[in-house]
Amino acid sequence: MKENEKALQLHYAWKGKIEITPRVKVDSREALSLAYTPGVAQACLEIQKDVSQGYALTRRWNTVAVVTDGTAVLGLGDIGPEAGMPVMEGKCALFKTFGGVDAIPLCIRSRDVEEIVHTIALLSGSFGGVNLEDISAPRCFEIEEKLKARCDIPVFHDDQHGSAVIVLAGLTNALRVVQKKPERVRVVISGAGASGLSIAHLLLKAGFRDLILCDRTGILYEGRPHGMNPYKERMVRRTNREKRRGTLGDALAGADVFLGFSTSGLVTAEMVRRMNPDPILFACANPVPEILPEQARAGGARIIATGRSDYPNQINNVLAFPGIFRGTLDAGASDINDEMKLAAAKALAELAEDRLSEDYIIPEAFDPRAAQAVAAAVEQAARDSGVVR
Amino acid sequence: MKENEKALQLHYAWKGKIEITPRVKVDSREALSLAYTPGVAQACLEIQKDVSQGYALTRRWNTVAVVTDGTAVLGLGDIGPEAGMPVMEGKCALFKTFGGVDAIPLCIRSRDVEEIVHTIALLSGSFGGVNLEDISAPRCFEIEEKLKARCDIPVFHDDQHGSAVIVLAGLTNALRVVQKKPERVRVVISGAGASGLSIAHLLLKAGFRDLILCDRTGILYEGRPHGMNPYKERMVRRTNREKRRGTLGDALAGADVFLGFSTSGLVTAEMVRRMNPDPILFACANPVPEILPEQARAGGARIIATGRSDYPNQINNVLAFPGIFRGTLDAGASDINDEMKLAAAKALAELAEDRLSEDYIIPEAFDPRAAQAVAAAVEQAARDSGVVR
Repeated sequence: MKENEKALQLHYAWKGKIEITPRVKVDSREALSLAYTPGVAQACLEIQKDVSQGYALTRRWNTVAVVTDGTAVLGLGDIGPEAGMPVMEGKCALFKTFGGVDAIPLCIRSRDVEEIVHTIALLSGSFGGVNLEDISAPRCFEIEEKLKARCDIPVFHDDQHGSAVIVLAGLTNALRVVQKKPERVRVVISGAGASGLSIAHLLLKAGFRDLILCDRTGILYEGRPHGMNPYKERMVRRTNREKRRGTLGDALAGADVFLGFSTSGLVTAEMVRRMNPDPILFACANPVPEILPEQARAGGARIIATGRSDYPNQINNVLAFPGIFRGTLDAGASDINDEMKLAAAKALAELAEDRLSEDYIIPEAFDPRAAQAVAAAVEQAARDSGVVR
Repeated sequence: MKENEKALQLHYAWKGKIEITPRVKVDSREALSLAYTPGVAQACLEIQKDVSQGYALTRRWNTVAVVTDGTAVLGLGDIGPEAGMPVMEGKCALFKTFGGVDAIPLCIRSRDVEEIVHTIALLSGSFGGVNLEDISAPRCFEIEEKLKARCDIPVFHDDQHGSAVIVLAGLTNALRVVQKKPERVRVVISGAGASGLSIAHLLLKAGFRDLILCDRTGILYEGRPHGMNPYKERMVRRTNREKRRGTLGDALAGADVFLGFSTSGLVTAEMVRRMNPDPILFACANPVPEILPEQARAGGARIIATGRSDYPNQINNVLAFPGIFRGTLDAGASDINDEMKLAAAKALAELAEDRLSEDYIIPEAFDPRAAQAVAAAVEQAARDSGVVR
């Protein structure tokens, strides 16, 4: 708790974690006549003729809005839009520090999907991209889907896709260590919210075939009468092909991989014991994982990853989102599609490849190579997949 | 035109006139755990308990949105939201350079008053204030009025109120030079748009009694059957007490002061000749004034101000808005009211007082004392008038 108190005091001292800096002089008549009136009119007229010139003549090419409604902030839940701002500012600081991206934090005083979509869409001419953040599921899926349909700029929900990219990167390397093939393993995903569903989607794209999703009421199956939504419905048609039912424990029996983005303490050593040989566990509940590494090890786990920095194999989104947006903006991409996410995961996995071990399946969270490698891969994938503006 | 080409090339080279700068380190595990997860949660929870803590724990205390719909950009007219962005970025650079204010440029893809108001209101938890910019009249009045009613943060339309403050400051000093009293002079205002109506309003607040407004069809009078709107209607009930009709030329006969925020070349030397002795002319049409200083002088003008930097007495909003927002934010004010605008004008006028002359009625546009003097006066007026949060 002492650390928490220190963090709070620092926030009071900082009085904001980002600020605006002018890139031009405007403090003399001469300077002003070039950067402002009357000279600025020329830049305006070029954009009026061709809106895409805004990417060359303003900061739009490098600017991303980081948007929340405050409904799912960290593990704190629905704390309101303004209360989400310290996280948004932190995210913006990370965007600039690691990706060189100018990110602007915006909180929206609405919980209505249509209203949030409409608000962001009306502002989208100001930005080169939108990063959605800490919006509760399943609303986040609907907001992202509708925004993508309406906007000509890339839209990305980091809680979904950032997590999916890191997990895929780490899992790819973990399977290399235990010498199993993606298309042969059974993966159990605990949590069918933003992260869980997006991870499932990306794993399927990456060639995984046997996935079982669980939520707090147990295994998801087609026709389950309770706790479903259109996004879970869509996913169960592509997973759990044996139409299993039961608890998370039942799902784990005979599974090769556990991916947890759910609740602390859900998994026991006994459950790990019932998994296939060489079990891989990503226990990413924060701040306390689904199973502590010590307990997982006691159950026979071979590879363990968590969201925490005090254990090996940290699953930390900061490895992905700055590079993903850097590459997207550099490409002038109008979307961040699956090909770009797969490329990001591949690039991250390859960074750790040369010294792979049970305790090193993914680069360290602050590996300075990460953003650049991800950016280059994402930019190329954007070009290859034809989403370049 | 060579200068214009240079300005355009510089805009291409700058690739944006502002950027985001992190104010904290986030490049190590320790730093991240304080500025981001898990430490940031404490700041979030404080704001959840008390939304006003957002002003202490995030950059909200110093952040202003600079918002346009692109309908009245400079003298270019309705060029579209994205095309307005170079001006918004320039404004943001001025805000930081002169006022230390972090200003974020936003363009809205809508021309609908309700939609614009609603969009800004939903975002208002992200900012400490809103500066409306380059929005066409009379929509700008309605947008500002409705936003003020809905938002708990100050809303200011610089094209209206910034101009009014500078004009009042300059006119106060001009009248001192010619030894006339505000309550005794007849003022003719050419232009009944954003600037003209707001200037009339502030002059009435400052004790001026005899105003006549003109638009492109001539003098505004109660019951005029053409070219009126609710804002002009409201104003004619408080001005033109003799219910005059006719042209701008008719209005100027016997007037002491001409204030032009209208169209180049409207005023002739002959019209100036028919004004009262010691005529004062503020000819602020841009880039070419309603009458050039040389011609006004030929007609007998005693004091001439323009929007241009190549003549004395430049009416330039940069003297006011950075200090007005600085003082407003420092006071934690929830509004920018008439008392604060009057205080800003008074502070500006006083800065020029000790060396007043026909050619020096207002400080130079880049007078380094201006922002600080205005800020201090506005902060005090905010406290005195009880609009402090």
